[in-house]
Formats: sequence, structure tokens, C-alpha cells
Amino acid sequence: MILIENARVLRDGKLVQANVLLEENKISAIGDFKDKSDYVIDGKGLAVIPGLFNSHTHAAMTLFRGYADDMPLQEWLEKKIWPAEARLNDEIVYWASKLACIEMLKSGTTFFLDMYFFPSATARAVEETGIRACLSSAFFDFFNKDLLEINLKRVEKELRELRGYRVLRAVAPHAVYTVSLEGLKRSMEMAEEENIFVHFHLAETEKEVVEFRKKYGKGIVSALDEIGFLNPRLISAHCVWLEKDEIGLMARKGVNAVHCPASNMKLSVGRALNYPEMKNSSLNVLLGTDGAASNNSLDMLREMKFSALLQKFYYGSDSFKAVDAFRMATENASRAFGIKAGKIEVGWLADLVLLDLKKIPMTPCHDLVANLVYSASSECVDTVIVDGKIVVENGHFESEEKIIEKFSKLTENFFGQLKT
Amino acid sequence: MILIENARVLRDGKLVQANVLLEENKISAIGDFKDKSDYVIDGKGLAVIPGLFNSHTHAAMTLFRGYADDMPLQEWLEKKIWPAEARLNDEIVYWASKLACIEMLKSGTTFFLDMYFFPSATARAVEETGIRACLSSAFFDFFNKDLLEINLKRVEKELRELRGYRVLRAVAPHAVYTVSLEGLKRSMEMAEEENIFVHFHLAETEKEVVEFRKKYGKGIVSALDEIGFLNPRLISAHCVWLEKDEIGLMARKGVNAVHCPASNMKLSVGRALNYPEMKNSSLNVLLGTDGAASNNSLDMLREMKFSALLQKFYYGSDSFKAVDAFRMATENASRAFGIKAGKIEVGWLADLVLLDLKKIPMTPCHDLVANLVYSASSECVDTVIVDGKIVVENGHFESEEKIIEKFSKLTENFFGQLKT
Repeated sequence: MILIENARVLRDGKLVQANVLLEENKISAIGDFKDKSDYVIDGKGLAVIPGLFNSHTHAAMTLFRGYADDMPLQEWLEKKIWPAEARLNDEIVYWASKLACIEMLKSGTTFFLDMYFFPSATARAVEETGIRACLSSAFFDFFNKDLLEINLKRVEKELRELRGYRVLRAVAPHAVYTVSLEGLKRSMEMAEEENIFVHFHLAETEKEVVEFRKKYGKGIVSALDEIGFLNPRLISAHCVWLEKDEIGLMARKGVNAVHCPASNMKLSVGRALNYPEMKNSSLNVLLGTDGAASNNSLDMLREMKFSALLQKFYYGSDSFKAVDAFRMATENASRAFGIKAGKIEVGWLADLVLLDLKKIPMTPCHDLVANLVYSASSECVDTVIVDGKIVVENGHFESEEKIIEKFSKLTENFFGQLKT
Repeated sequence: MILIENARVLRDGKLVQANVLLEENKISAIGDFKDKSDYVIDGKGLAVIPGLFNSHTHAAMTLFRGYADDMPLQEWLEKKIWPAEARLNDEIVYWASKLACIEMLKSGTTFFLDMYFFPSATARAVEETGIRACLSSAFFDFFNKDLLEINLKRVEKELRELRGYRVLRAVAPHAVYTVSLEGLKRSMEMAEEENIFVHFHLAETEKEVVEFRKKYGKGIVSALDEIGFLNPRLISAHCVWLEKDEIGLMARKGVNAVHCPASNMKLSVGRALNYPEMKNSSLNVLLGTDGAASNNSLDMLREMKFSALLQKFYYGSDSFKAVDAFRMATENASRAFGIKAGKIEVGWLADLVLLDLKKIPMTPCHDLVANLVYSASSECVDTVIVDGKIVVENGHFESEEKIIEKFSKLTENFFGQLKT
């Protein structure tokens, strides 16, 4: 049992003075009660908010943070990323994921949706750091039937292995320009059989959309609809180049879109996700950082600001409010993943962040949600609780320094070898 | 004397292993020397970079951080900001500026250019916190001759008072839609007499540009040229709605432009500053956060990322590199203000930031400048030295907590009164 005493708790967009009691992994009481607990947190000067959901990332790509920015995309992939990724192994993915988990926890994220290689390595990092996650087994088939069969076998194997961990699971066909429609169809069938999610990149660039139409003679979204790919299991990242009717269809089918504003800006995708139309159609929009190669940070506090500012810049200053960004990062994701977190309610999961209201970015505190979205930084994160367990205390993750040191050595070794 | 031993020093975009010796307020040696000093900093695991320049802000507007976001501009000004600003006083400006100075120092900024009311109050905050600044005496004349004379008298008085402080000075006619051409001309004459700067908002919105042409029958930049307003003393913030020939003319005249990407996005000015054309014309471009009412952060590490990502989003992913953002925040500003800081050279000012390379946003360190622009946060700022004095140590400003507490109380009082 953990009792948070005399804190200010964020409920329905407002801060209310309350005690919060956590039992096992759930919130068991909120209010003006007296109780005893083994462990009491003095909540004076703290705000209790739900933990944030990072709904699209490639955690282990922390390995490539700052490795090759500012290069043209094709050159970047061919000369830098692909040769390095061909040499990845379980160990380096484990340590890079561990660094990512701690980076996320320390900036207030308690859940992430991942897509990368060696998902079991990431699952170990997730369990050891205490964060919550949905991990994907990813594949490309490059429109080759043999490759599809080989990859689906690997995906099945990886998904079986993931069953042994405290994670949600997804199958992740990469995108329409790397996976055949047959591959997408089989992915969704597998997801339905296993009752898991499908994690996918959708309509990130104009090129993707134009070339699909050239190749298949129809739009991506209607093609996906024809093969039964559009349903609430689908978590589709980017969703930048969608037309109004496509947004409407996706909304009716219950698909989830993930806004990745920093990545979209850095890679210059040419447009902002059409949030006004998505809101209008009631399409569920989540928020994600994308990986450290294209962001280069996994900090959802910073990402909320990018989402608000990009939307305002593109669609007008009153097109988007701080609370829209906050919802993308909390309750919209909660709904998509069926996780009872993202709101502070009795019976819901104890996935909480305690913010220090006495830090400069929180001063003054006219409006907590505005400060959270527009000025808060990881400096303001005091305590992070996931599944009822304290994982960050006084802004510190216990074995942080050792993990950074170990990861730095492995990285030098990994890239040192590459240079030969 | 301060000796920084065994650090990695950023010179010409690369980290080099070196000792750095500071004597009085200057860098007196860099290299592989042995020396004794009263005060030795162990530089192991630290990177020494020049302090950042925040070249456009309204420091005391920390008072309005999160006060009224997401409102239409006119309503925001008329119902919220102006009624509150009418009640400002020396004391509240002093404390709000003090908070701003500490926020800037803790995120690696060692110089700022300010525009606000009660500049002597801000000057006291500058001296007491140890930051370097150029402070403006600002005015509007609303095209009224009497108001112009009254305001110029106040400006003269305020500039005289500022002489008593360790600050650079500027006269700040607000913008072409609030100050007459006569007011602008007189401001530049005053700046030339006093040998100080002119701080000004230029071409922030399309409305400003369109209405000026309607009123005066010519473009803003050529009108400014006719009255002798364009010269290297001029630091013009925003510069979003400028055409190619205007950028060329400003470049030939040696004018300085300040990019304020977060503010431009939040207020939805409709365009990004045309950096490709400015670079092409060799117009000197600096970087600024604008005030906390329109950002809401004064963190130049975050602002460098906004500048890079907005430019890439608007003009293409290879239009802008991390080093462009870093130069805007260092050597370009150094040139504009004639301050020998912004580079680490013998004989230059000891305005330095020591970054902790063992923090997650700096891990791995493939490229320091990329990490600085795309992932670093205030968490990475270990030590800040201004004018040879240590002002931030272990990421902490000495009396920070007391200042936050005092400011919070004053703010509650200030806004509490307003509500009545």
C-alpha cells in the first residue's frame, strides 16, 4: 500500500486537493479520508497526474541518437542506418531499450508502443525497468511470397516468446511500401487469432500515397478496408497524408491514429496530421515520439508541446488546445490499448506521475495542463509509479548511472567495429 | 582563477580534450598545459560549450506563463494581458525577471536581449543573478505626437538609469503598427547618439505587412530604409513576412533578424522565417524564445530544436542543420551584440556552460552539436559560468527555491487582486 498525502490531483482538467491510496497495482481511494499505509508520500507541493502513453516509438534506436542527422533520407538509410542495423544483436537491443525505458520513465511516460527487432530483448528491458509496454514483432516482405512465409514464422515465434513477459503484444507489418497486401491481411488475421494489436506506419509521406495509387489503382485506406485491415486493433503511426473521406472511414472502423509531430517535422513530411478533421470525425488520435533516430528525444512532455505548436502553426492558433495534447497522451491511448490508466479513478491502474510544482517551468501555476504541455520538462518529474510500484524517486532511476555507462561502452564498441 | 581540467571542449564543431583556464572574466588558456589555480573543476565527463544567447524575450512575462493560452489573440490581449499589464509595478517585474534569469541560466543561456516595462527592475535581477543582458526601454506612441514626446522622455530617463547597471542598452520602439515612422526615426537617432541598440518587432504577421502597405503605400522594409532605420544596431525580432528583395536589402545594411520559432508556431503566424534566403543573402540570423506568454518556456536548448524542426518542416529536411541552430544561438548573436562570447577562444569572455555527457539525452555522443540541438535538456546543464563567475553548480542556482517561493506568493497576490 502507498498513500500519497495532501497532494493536488488532476481530475477532469482541474487540480483538486486529495489523498490517493494505492493498493496492489490499483488506485483504491481518492479523497479526504484518513488511512494508514506502510509507505506514505508527502504530496505537499506535488501534482498527481496520470502517466503518459508514448504510442509510437522504436526504443532501441537510442543507439542512433545523433548518429546521422541532417542527411537526405535515402543516403541516411543506405549508408548509415541499414549497415548498422544489419549488425544488431540481442545484447545491444536490450541495453539500448533499457536506456530508452529510463529516458521515458524519467520524463513521465509509463507506457510505450514499440516496433523494432529482437522484441524479447526489449521485453527484458521493460520488465527490469518496470515500465508498461506493448511490443511488436515487426517484418517486411518486400512483396516476395517466400520472404513473407519466412517472416511470418519468425513473427509467430517472437510473439510466442513475448507471452512469457508482462507486455501487451502486436504484430507489425512495417508499411504498404515494404509489405504486400497479402502480408497485411495475414498480419490482421494473426492479430485476431491471438487477440493482439497491429502496429503499422500509415500515410507518412506523399510519395507513399502517390506510389501506392500508381501501383494498385486505388487509395491506401480503401485497399486496407477491402482486406479487413481497418478495425480497433490497428494502431497506425503518422497518418499525415489522409484525405477527408479516408479519415471518416477510419473513424467509422475504430482505427487509431498516432501523431508524431517532431519526427514529421524533422523528416519534413510536408504536412501536419489533419487533427481538426480527425476530431470532427471522432477518429481516436494518440501521440508518439517515434524513435531517437528521427526525433531525437523520447520525452513525451516535449512531444505534447510539438503536437500543440505544429497543429496551431498549420491549422490556426485556436485549432488546438493544451488539453487536446494531454488527451492524446493519456485517455485516447488508454482507450486504444484497453488499459485502465491515463485517468485518475478508483479501480484504475496505479500508473502515476508526481510533478514537482516548485520547479521553474511549473511557476506560476495558473493552469496545470497548460504548464504540462507548454513548459514542463523532465526536471519537473519527481516520482513515477507504474503498476503500483515506485520506479522513479526524486527524479532518479535507481541504477541509471550504471546503465548509461554500460550502454556507452557497448555503443563505442558497436560503432568502432563498424568503422573497420 | 578557475581551471577546468580534462574536459572536452567544443571548438569548430568538434570536441577536443583540453584544459581551460579562466582569469578574471576571460579565457586565458586552452590546451594541454599544467597550471595551478585557486579553484579546479574536474572536467571528466563534461563538455565545455559557449553559453547561449537568447536574442528576443520579455523576461518578466514569466508572470503570464500558462495564464491564458489557446485564446484568440485580440481577446487574449484585451481581456487578459492588457488589464494585468496596466497593474504592473517595479517589484513584480523584478521578481518575474529574476525567475526568468534563473530559468535561462539553468538551461545554458548566459545572455538575453529583453523588451519590457520597468527595465531597471530587470537590471537589478540581471546583476543579482549574474547573467549578461541587453535591456530595452520600450514604447508605443500609437501615432500620437504628444504621446511620442512623453514616451521619448521616459525612454531617455530609463536609459540613463540603466547606465548604472552592468547591462547593454537598447531603445525599443515596439512595431510599425504601434509606433509612427517619426517615432522609429527618433529611436534610431537616439540609439546612434547613445551608441546603443534598437530592439524591434518586424514583419511578425501578414496583417502587419498588408496594413502597412495600405496605410503608407509602400513596403515596411523600404520605408524603414528611407528613414535610416536599417543598420547593424537594429535587432529585429520575428522577420517572418519578408520578401526576397527585403531580405537582400536588410543583409546589405547589416541588420540582424531574430528567429522565434516556438512563438511563431504557437501564435500561428502562417509562415516560417525564410532562413534559406537569409543564409543565401548572408543576413545575420539570431535565435530567441520570445516571452513566456507566447512560448511558454525560456529554454534555448528547446528553442534550438524548434528552429531546426520548423525550418526542416517548412523548407525540406536538408535545408537546415543542427549547426545552423547552434550558430544562431552563439556566434551570430556574438557578432550582432559585439560581445566576445559564443566561441571558446583565448582572450574571449568566460561565458561558458559545462554539460554533463553522462545524462541520457547526451547518450550516446556520436555528435555533440546534434545532441545539443535535438535532444539535450536543462537536465544536462551541470555548471554555468558568466563573466568568469560560477552561477549554476550541479544544475542548481543558489537561492533558487527561495526566489520561486517569493515569486509564487507575489503572483497569487497579484492575480488574486485582479479577480476582485
